[in-house]
Amino acid sequence: MINQDTICAIATAQGGAIGTIRVSGKDAITITEKIFRPFKKDKILHEQPAYTLTFGKIIDHEEVIDEVLISLFKAPHSFTGENSVEITCHGSTYILQKVMELLIKNGCRTAQPGEYTQRAFLNGKMDLSQAEAVADLIASTSAATHRLAMSQMRGGFSKELAELRNQLLHITSMIELELDFSEEDVEFANRDQLKALADKIEQVISKLTNSFSVGNAIKNGVPVAIIGETNAGKSTLLNALLNEDKAIVSNIHGTTRDVIEDTMNIGGITFRFIDTAGIRETHDTIESLGIERTFQKLDQAEIVLWVIDAPTATEQIQQLAEKIVPRAQSKQLILVFNKSELINESERKGLEALAQTHYPSLTSIFISAKEKEGVEQLEKLLTNSANLPTVTQNDVIVTNMRHYEALTKALEAIHRVQDGLEMQISGDFLSQDIRECIFHLNDIAGEVTNDMVLQNIFKNFCIGK
Amino acid sequence: MINQDTICAIATAQGGAIGTIRVSGKDAITITEKIFRPFKKDKILHEQPAYTLTFGKIIDHEEVIDEVLISLFKAPHSFTGENSVEITCHGSTYILQKVMELLIKNGCRTAQPGEYTQRAFLNGKMDLSQAEAVADLIASTSAATHRLAMSQMRGGFSKELAELRNQLLHITSMIELELDFSEEDVEFANRDQLKALADKIEQVISKLTNSFSVGNAIKNGVPVAIIGETNAGKSTLLNALLNEDKAIVSNIHGTTRDVIEDTMNIGGITFRFIDTAGIRETHDTIESLGIERTFQKLDQAEIVLWVIDAPTATEQIQQLAEKIVPRAQSKQLILVFNKSELINESERKGLEALAQTHYPSLTSIFISAKEKEGVEQLEKLLTNSANLPTVTQNDVIVTNMRHYEALTKALEAIHRVQDGLEMQISGDFLSQDIRECIFHLNDIAGEVTNDMVLQNIFKNFCIGK
Repeated sequence: MINQDTICAIATAQGGAIGTIRVSGKDAITITEKIFRPFKKDKILHEQPAYTLTFGKIIDHEEVIDEVLISLFKAPHSFTGENSVEITCHGSTYILQKVMELLIKNGCRTAQPGEYTQRAFLNGKMDLSQAEAVADLIASTSAATHRLAMSQMRGGFSKELAELRNQLLHITSMIELELDFSEEDVEFANRDQLKALADKIEQVISKLTNSFSVGNAIKNGVPVAIIGETNAGKSTLLNALLNEDKAIVSNIHGTTRDVIEDTMNIGGITFRFIDTAGIRETHDTIESLGIERTFQKLDQAEIVLWVIDAPTATEQIQQLAEKIVPRAQSKQLILVFNKSELINESERKGLEALAQTHYPSLTSIFISAKEKEGVEQLEKLLTNSANLPTVTQNDVIVTNMRHYEALTKALEAIHRVQDGLEMQISGDFLSQDIRECIFHLNDIAGEVTNDMVLQNIFKNFCIGK
Repeated sequence: MINQDTICAIATAQGGAIGTIRVSGKDAITITEKIFRPFKKDKILHEQPAYTLTFGKIIDHEEVIDEVLISLFKAPHSFTGENSVEITCHGSTYILQKVMELLIKNGCRTAQPGEYTQRAFLNGKMDLSQAEAVADLIASTSAATHRLAMSQMRGGFSKELAELRNQLLHITSMIELELDFSEEDVEFANRDQLKALADKIEQVISKLTNSFSVGNAIKNGVPVAIIGETNAGKSTLLNALLNEDKAIVSNIHGTTRDVIEDTMNIGGITFRFIDTAGIRETHDTIESLGIERTFQKLDQAEIVLWVIDAPTATEQIQQLAEKIVPRAQSKQLILVFNKSELINESERKGLEALAQTHYPSLTSIFISAKEKEGVEQLEKLLTNSANLPTVTQNDVIVTNMRHYEALTKALEAIHRVQDGLEMQISGDFLSQDIRECIFHLNDIAGEVTNDMVLQNIFKNFCIGK
């Protein structure tokens, strides 16, 4: 059994003043004792109370590897639920490697990515959605992503779902009991109660699945597509926004063939910028593929920045409006007149009027990406358009694709239950749909999850977590 | 007073599974309490015993920033000798920054580089040479550098020097007492005893200063200069040894104008390779400077690889032997016949005979840097030539330039004491030299060191140490 081994890993990144090695498993304390000498002789490690620190030396034969502090945890009162030790030493790569070597020589094995958290899950210290939140928490880079991860780690929606699932479980077992007495036409499960419960569940799950677009935008960034004709200055604009030279900028038409993505935090909101190949009539196969991708990316965006070369704006709008405007129907479309340094005030007024007349619902802005003029106003427009709610730690928001999929399936099942009740279908069919709903709800907490799924989840963790 | 502030710093590198923040100073515990809520309400932080871990939450108003473990240390039983707290949280940059922000808001200030170790020194937890070893320990990358740093951190030579210094101090105060009774011609300090002590000290310090070349070679690498005529393939050889393309290699004479250094671990020994501009008659000013630097670098090397283009070897040896051989007198000079793929067996035999006849004491080797043939044998030659002793943690070896300088000055002073005794000079002159010796010995342990020197030493530490 994988869970029987005692595992060790360096849990801190390379290069700090101090480094920490985590040891977890049945023999964590006894193995550590073999390589550790407390400074005070009577401080025998396994005799120390849990939640204490012991100062001493890590020893390889008679050679001192380092002076360290040992944090002691005893099962089940540790992160993993197992006996655990954390060895805090000087942050030298040589020392950390050497201590790992000694631990392995004495019976530990190197931990897999996420194995500590996986053990915490397997030992019932947290459910699967909470375990998944640990990785999100470590990866969190903004107040919003941090809040979402923290909310999920502290129980989030999984507690609420568990409660509803238990009620479903009770009702379905009643229905299944009816089946045993099918010839007697009894009804143990009150259909009105079931309907009320199904409605409640439908409501809760709908709210959760609806929260996913917000959750996803917060976690992965609000997708912003930058589109427009070749040479309108899309890459220069992206660079101006990103303050770096990621996209190649040149004067040759159609330079940007690959779709480049980059994220940026503007006013506390993460945006995921998608630079795209320019749109124009082309016979170049590679470039045609790029343009096709442009439109695919446009479909994924929530905000579309249509960059227009100001000096030739009238022409460009005529050529592309038909292609772009209908595809951006449900999105925030912003007209960005670039190279504003090349037009005069009256031309500018003319373009404003043109946009106002034909597309009164669109927002437009004049900028000079090259001179970095108007970029700040554009950033302001972006944060306004993102329209993300301010989340608190009490908000229940789904950010995880796996959860979203399970919830969507649970929702479909509960819809069938509602329909079935409406149509007064028989108990065995009802029960089947209820069981499916329960199955998917269980999936989120990891109660029915198989090894493959677990492996998939934890392999994306870092080592030492 | 700098030492009155309570300081905080992130002590782990960015990007690990867990991160640790160190807080040290009078108010370390009370400040931490303001942002920490233990999970068990009765676990009031300042009431907990030292060397315990407390589990709880870091709180910003009502928002949970993270679930953390607090390690508690009470003055004087901590690394710095002050009240100290270590906050271990999830390794998210956002969380670590947020916790730092909260600590600062509640009265901490950010620590300077090395400030924890500096405080440990100022609070008498270690002497200066031990404090300096902390940085070496963290930077240690091999068994040898680790051993040297560990030996120094655990007291190393500073204890022995302190003992000898105390004896000197006693004798000099006796001599100074004589001066008060100068009219009576008394002799409180036994000159034979002083002579014996001076001889002992001279012996100890000589041994230490002599150990510096070994210490420096272990710590910074054995310096190996690669010299030879332009286009002999020096850079290609360096690349072959380093397995990377650091030096620019081309066929144009005189490509390598700057001196490039790189270190490499071969057979457990660190070598510091110095690639140099080619030697040839030149009127190019920049290149002449490069060649002048070549010879300067040759002076610093312990091993000199003289790379010779095998096809034109006879000519090259004739041109350069006069310039190189005398300058490499006290060094290990190795003749490296490169481009061996371009000569046949009889030419090879001829060159071997030539080298043998004219320079019987030199080692020579045939390689093809381009084809990477003979490189392994060359590496073996290098490890043999390095001739470094195997060090243990009990070896007392000086690795620090500051210590070396202080020891050299102390040695000069004790030599003057020895000479003075020989010449039977008067007590006041003797005393002056003894005081100077004591001064320099004190300098190593940091007992007379001024703030500027301290700042210089600790500014090279990393933050959080």
